[in-house]
Amino acid sequence: MRLVKHSRTKIGMKPGAVVYVGEERQGPVLADVIDYTVDQLSEWQSGSLDKLTELGSSDSISWINLPGVHDIELVSGLGERFGLHQLILEDIVNCSSRPKYEEGGESACLILKMLYRTTSGELKNEQISVVFGKQWVISFQETKLDVLEHVRERVRKSIPRKRFMTADYLAYSLADAIVDHYFLVLEHVSERVEEIEDKLISHPEREDLEQIYALKREMAFIRKAVWPLREAIGAFERTENDLLNDGTRPYLRDLYEHVIQVIDTVETLRDMVSGLLDFYLSSVSNKMNEVMKVLTIMASVFIPLGFLAGVYGMNFDTNSPFNLPELGFKYGYFLFWGLVLAVGGGQLWMFKRKRWL
Amino acid sequence: MRLVKHSRTKIGMKPGAVVYVGEERQGPVLADVIDYTVDQLSEWQSGSLDKLTELGSSDSISWINLPGVHDIELVSGLGERFGLHQLILEDIVNCSSRPKYEEGGESACLILKMLYRTTSGELKNEQISVVFGKQWVISFQETKLDVLEHVRERVRKSIPRKRFMTADYLAYSLADAIVDHYFLVLEHVSERVEEIEDKLISHPEREDLEQIYALKREMAFIRKAVWPLREAIGAFERTENDLLNDGTRPYLRDLYEHVIQVIDTVETLRDMVSGLLDFYLSSVSNKMNEVMKVLTIMASVFIPLGFLAGVYGMNFDTNSPFNLPELGFKYGYFLFWGLVLAVGGGQLWMFKRKRWL
Amino acid sequence: MRLVKHSRTKIGMKPGAVVYVGEERQGPVLADVIDYTVDQLSEWQSGSLDKLTELGSSDSISWINLPGVHDIELVSGLGERFGLHQLILEDIVNCSSRPKYEEGGESACLILKMLYRTTSGELKNEQISVVFGKQWVISFQETKLDVLEHVRERVRKSIPRKRFMTADYLAYSLADAIVDHYFLVLEHVSERVEEIEDKLISHPEREDLEQIYALKREMAFIRKAVWPLREAIGAFERTENDLLNDGTRPYLRDLYEHVIQVIDTVETLRDMVSGLLDFYLSSVSNKMNEVMKVLTIMASVFIPLGFLAGVYGMNFDTNSPFNLPELGFKYGYFLFWGLVLAVGGGQLWMFKRKRWL
Amino acid sequence: MRLVKHSRTKIGMKPGAVVYVGEERQGPVLADVIDYTVDQLSEWQSGSLDKLTELGSSDSISWINLPGVHDIELVSGLGERFGLHQLILEDIVNCSSRPKYEEGGESACLILKMLYRTTSGELKNEQISVVFGKQWVISFQETKLDVLEHVRERVRKSIPRKRFMTADYLAYSLADAIVDHYFLVLEHVSERVEEIEDKLISHPEREDLEQIYALKREMAFIRKAVWPLREAIGAFERTENDLLNDGTRPYLRDLYEHVIQVIDTVETLRDMVSGLLDFYLSSVSNKMNEVMKVLTIMASVFIPLGFLAGVYGMNFDTNSPFNLPELGFKYGYFLFWGLVLAVGGGQLWMFKRKRWL
Amino acid sequence: MRLVKHSRTKIGMKPGAVVYVGEERQGPVLADVIDYTVDQLSEWQSGSLDKLTELGSSDSISWINLPGVHDIELVSGLGERFGLHQLILEDIVNCSSRPKYEEGGESACLILKMLYRTTSGELKNEQISVVFGKQWVISFQETKLDVLEHVRERVRKSIPRKRFMTADYLAYSLADAIVDHYFLVLEHVSERVEEIEDKLISHPEREDLEQIYALKREMAFIRKAVWPLREAIGAFERTENDLLNDGTRPYLRDLYEHVIQVIDTVETLRDMVSGLLDFYLSSVSNKMNEVMKVLTIMASVFIPLGFLAGVYGMNFDTNSPFNLPELGFKYGYFLFWGLVLAVGGGQLWMFKRKRWL
Repeated sequence: MRLVKHSRTKIGMKPGAVVYVGEERQGPVLADVIDYTVDQLSEWQSGSLDKLTELGSSDSISWINLPGVHDIELVSGLGERFGLHQLILEDIVNCSSRPKYEEGGESACLILKMLYRTTSGELKNEQISVVFGKQWVISFQETKLDVLEHVRERVRKSIPRKRFMTADYLAYSLADAIVDHYFLVLEHVSERVEEIEDKLISHPEREDLEQIYALKREMAFIRKAVWPLREAIGAFERTENDLLNDGTRPYLRDLYEHVIQVIDTVETLRDMVSGLLDFYLSSVSNKMNEVMKVLTIMASVFIPLGFLAGVYGMNFDTNSPFNLPELGFKYGYFLFWGLVLAVGGGQLWMFKRKRWL
Repeated sequence: MRLVKHSRTKIGMKPGAVVYVGEERQGPVLADVIDYTVDQLSEWQSGSLDKLTELGSSDSISWINLPGVHDIELVSGLGERFGLHQLILEDIVNCSSRPKYEEGGESACLILKMLYRTTSGELKNEQISVVFGKQWVISFQETKLDVLEHVRERVRKSIPRKRFMTADYLAYSLADAIVDHYFLVLEHVSERVEEIEDKLISHPEREDLEQIYALKREMAFIRKAVWPLREAIGAFERTENDLLNDGTRPYLRDLYEHVIQVIDTVETLRDMVSGLLDFYLSSVSNKMNEVMKVLTIMASVFIPLGFLAGVYGMNFDTNSPFNLPELGFKYGYFLFWGLVLAVGGGQLWMFKRKRWL
Repeated sequence: MRLVKHSRTKIGMKPGAVVYVGEERQGPVLADVIDYTVDQLSEWQSGSLDKLTELGSSDSISWINLPGVHDIELVSGLGERFGLHQLILEDIVNCSSRPKYEEGGESACLILKMLYRTTSGELKNEQISVVFGKQWVISFQETKLDVLEHVRERVRKSIPRKRFMTADYLAYSLADAIVDHYFLVLEHVSERVEEIEDKLISHPEREDLEQIYALKREMAFIRKAVWPLREAIGAFERTENDLLNDGTRPYLRDLYEHVIQVIDTVETLRDMVSGLLDFYLSSVSNKMNEVMKVLTIMASVFIPLGFLAGVYGMNFDTNSPFNLPELGFKYGYFLFWGLVLAVGGGQLWMFKRKRWL
Repeated sequence: MRLVKHSRTKIGMKPGAVVYVGEERQGPVLADVIDYTVDQLSEWQSGSLDKLTELGSSDSISWINLPGVHDIELVSGLGERFGLHQLILEDIVNCSSRPKYEEGGESACLILKMLYRTTSGELKNEQISVVFGKQWVISFQETKLDVLEHVRERVRKSIPRKRFMTADYLAYSLADAIVDHYFLVLEHVSERVEEIEDKLISHPEREDLEQIYALKREMAFIRKAVWPLREAIGAFERTENDLLNDGTRPYLRDLYEHVIQVIDTVETLRDMVSGLLDFYLSSVSNKMNEVMKVLTIMASVFIPLGFLAGVYGMNFDTNSPFNLPELGFKYGYFLFWGLVLAVGGGQLWMFKRKRWL
Repeated sequence: MRLVKHSRTKIGMKPGAVVYVGEERQGPVLADVIDYTVDQLSEWQSGSLDKLTELGSSDSISWINLPGVHDIELVSGLGERFGLHQLILEDIVNCSSRPKYEEGGESACLILKMLYRTTSGELKNEQISVVFGKQWVISFQETKLDVLEHVRERVRKSIPRKRFMTADYLAYSLADAIVDHYFLVLEHVSERVEEIEDKLISHPEREDLEQIYALKREMAFIRKAVWPLREAIGAFERTENDLLNDGTRPYLRDLYEHVIQVIDTVETLRDMVSGLLDFYLSSVSNKMNEVMKVLTIMASVFIPLGFLAGVYGMNFDTNSPFNLPELGFKYGYFLFWGLVLAVGGGQLWMFKRKRWL
């Protein structure tokens, strides 16, 4: 969960340089291809640029999914074949791009951030770019996450595939799957907020502070990923491009609504997390107050009494009748305890009146 | 009062899937039907799709109220009959939709959130969707709350029903009833704010903190429900749709004003609640200060005195005339008390001057 | 000074129901009427609807002031005579309406809030509605406050009454008088801010906190009244209505400027009041620090000394030459005091170096 | 440095009443007049309305500077001669007007606030109004401040006076001189922020709090003066009025940029001052922590030791071999000191481990 | 890292005065010139105005880089030759100008701020102005920083130089290099935030506070430099000027996106730094709480015990059977220790129950 990804290798490069920026990854990238018509569908994997560039020209819809963008050659090859601008290719392979919607000539590109939690609970984001033309869709993933599997499944099963027969609807479906995933992440945050809340009410601890702070940090991270989405999906929805069919527009509006809802929720959760911090701080103050009261009561009662005992432990010459005559009283000791009870009780009564007890 | 409703079952579904998302509910749903003309009115209940789909085609105005949206079949059937888009149906049955106004073909749909307090005082929200066409209005409720009863009563009683003879006015009346309900909720919050205020001024306690925090949370909850309303009602007011009659427009503007007033009040109350927290914290600080002063005064006065008593309790060999000669003084004890009064009194005077007493 | 006025009686009413919502008031309402031309003026009072409805049709300008809106019959009657929309009448008699400017047919309506302090110093707001047509102005007040008296006086005295011969200018004059009154309220707040500031610098007390909080609350109250004013007066200024004469427009722009200035001042004062709270809190922290230092110094100096005295008060068997040999020293007592001075002085020197003294 | 200027005398006046509102001032006002053409210039002073009203009709450019607006007669006379609207005159003589740009007929008026520090370091603002027509400029100052002297000097010296031969450029120059002055004030604030920062890092004191608060107040004051400037200068820049020459426009854009820069700086400084307060508070907390640690260490070490010494000062009957046998040990005293060192050292070691030392 | 640069020498100057405002610098300024066509390139340095003004008229593209703007004569000479407006020249030599994009006649000017860290880690900003016409680009730097070296290198190496054959692309490349540099600065801040975070979790110290505050200050400084960039680059992107070629536009859009991303990151980092401060403060509160608990436990346990020991150290006359009979008990001492253990243990148990241990 880095807020600013390291991109030193990028500084000084020429703009439009298609250079992979992201965690180091290696190995060949095998594209998952689905090629379908209303009633037929073929699926295969390939890492060969030649086979992939043949796609997208027939009447079928071709969806190429690239689970990795570190194979620059493959990405550049696809870019050339499908007419993508250099700058778009640069954004696709630079995993710290900002979410956006960009159009150019025969294609449109949507760069999104996928938020997910690793099995160890760490929050991560991954860039997923969706490029589409009239008859083809290419999705670029940083790693082989299965978030798009749901869509793949739906493409396979929905026969006849009327809705899926336009590339824009397929692209929309991918974006929708990604945005839907945000709700999962937010739900998890929301549950943790509630857990911490319950904990704070019963007994706040120092580790709660660390958790609250971690939540706050996560919210900053999520927020940074989510805000630009509004603009990106908004531009996608409002575009006048021929690639967009009228039948898809209501779905895009719906998607936009979802993004707004995500943002609303993020803002509310941020508020909640700030509230948690205030609550924690107030609890700590309260507790300190309580601690201080105990100290004050104990000290206020027993320090004077200690002084009293000290007085009667003094060694003044009792031959003088004026020195410590109490020591010679028959009931001096009882008098002493009476004094102790009076002083101590008086103070307790005073503290009671101040509502400290 | 969950901020993010659990919607796991929804992830991975295709967009437009009409799947009920909400608290689990069962049992048949009986629609309340009112069918009226200017001077006639018939009322009946029915759970049969066949009877309901006959409505809305004659000259009378038909209002179908569905107190439950978990009966997917019924909702889908109505949707088909009255020409609602799949996505609107999805929003209607998904109880965590965002308030909005949507139009499509022959109908318009308003999705709203009803805020109310359960008898146990918990704040809840419930989705109410109002769909209307030329001659019909369908309202979908999550549960059978009686907030719309006022409107039903007015429809029954206002004879001749001139104003109610357009479906848009009836739809407006339903929305108005829901928005008016917000004021009740806010009033309740406002009263609690005042109670806590009074309490904080007299004697702040730890439980006040919890109450303030609960209020803060409620305000976040209300705010999340209220803000999108502005947009929704605003879109309703500004629409150019044929379904809206000119006579209804001033009412819509009035409704919009009410929404703005609700939002104003929510913001002001949020401010007030934050103010309460600050006030509480300041009070705690103040109190701690007071506690510390008592401790400091007691300790500062009696610890030195204790030392003094300790000095005269020492066992130095008094055979040497230089050791503790005071012990042999005839009035040594009085001298000691004089010293005690001088030291103690001096300190009290000093504390007085510092205004700590 | 309630933030949310109680309006329970209103819930469930039909929109446009002209029902008085406000503090309970009774007794007949006598309208103050001024009817004037450029050089003539007649003034009289009347509670009779018949007499009032005769007004506004001749060439003279008639100003009817209604010091009370609980007489629903009277208000409705005037509304019917002067062609006011039901919804406007509803807003006029509902004393918790939001400030706004509304037009309709032959008249325009301005709903404003008058802020004032009662003699007991409490801040109150009162709704004043100004409705005007071509030849008439009606002002509705909640109670008989004399804020409009200044205008009445000016109407009486300015002869010839060229400027006042258009109803819109008279309406503007009323609005101007109300807005001008805000400055008085803000000035009073400003003075109190300065008083508290001075007090905080010399010696902050707990009651200052309550005063700051009360100020904060007042600012929230004022803000809620003032913000909608901007929109209302703005709409008034920009309207294209025939009722507005070109000669009046510069005055409206001026009025709008005043409203902006009021809002600026409110925001600055809010800032100041928040600043006061921070200042108070910092002062309390500072003071606590000071208290703690005194405690720490006294305790750190005298507790060790008390231990020392305790040591020489021990009863070890001094027959053993190893036990407490100091007790037998000729100058043991002086040595003891030397030790006391060394320990105590050393600490004081240390505290001095830490700048605690 | 009052936030809300007292304007009680104004309440109840008719709008457009040209009444001086400001600090009480008396004595005659002598206008400084500069009348110049490209190569000629005459300068003189006059308090006579007759002489002044002759100006502005020839081909020369006349600049009348009025160092005082309490001479209502003079101001009104000039207003009449140069065709100023009543409301503009009212704003000119009311020294608590809001900065603005206003046009009317043959002239345009710019009302600005001049910020400056008196020799005693107090921040003050003064209203300067600049009115200009085709051939004349009149500037109204509250007092005879020399901020416009720079401009006067430049007019005198720049021969030939090509640029100055349009009144709008002269008016711009005056506004520019005023805006430039803000930088001086902000620079001074900036320097004080840095001083306090350095002080806080080395040794924060209570008086720093007062200084920070004073700075905060000053920033509120400056902000209130500066924000409306944006709008005023913006309106000046964008106006389509004939009085503005194309050659002057780039200068106006430049002036606008300066205003934006002033606002940016004000906002950044406000941020800095808030940061100072946080820093101060954190420092105080830190310091208190340190104080508490000293107290805790001293008390924790010596109170138990005092108890120990007390134990061996008890007077149990040592005839019983079970009572205080340690007192009879040959090396009892050494044992005691060993115990003291063990207990004290153990605690110090514990505190060391807790990093409190 | 000054927020407000000292510009006293500037006050009172006439607008458009080309006066160097910045750190004092001397010595001649040697311009770096690159003159190139698609396949040829010549590079040389010169401080002579005559040689420089010959450039820009042939078919080649000339890039003049001036590493210093204190040589007013040189700057003015270039300004005259290439037709720059006086006000633009003023902005170029005034090193505290606000970033902006300005057009005029045959040229366009982009004033930017370069952020960098000196070797001692101090954050500095430097103004870089880029002016370009059809065939020429002039860049003005405050000092000879090598940020533009990357671009120079790319110009040298990219053969054939198709893209670089328009001056606007070269200007864009310079701006891009500067904006890219921001990421380096932000990355550094981000790393420091993470370091401090880790430190705060393990053991917060006072010096962390100073570091957090320094970060906060840096963020204010960066923010002030970055925000105006948005407007400047935005204006650059949207301009309709003939100087901009269609091929360059996508690059400008990309540049704009980068600026937005920088701003996003700045805002997120600001949030993070504020979060750090809250975290620090909470940690300090927590720690104080812990300190207080230790003190309270020690004092509460041992002060009463000290009193107890004091009681049995009293010298009441034990001849009276009522005075301190415990002293004569055979097992009195054991009883005493039993009492000590009971009192001390009871308190520890109580503290345990309060979860203070």
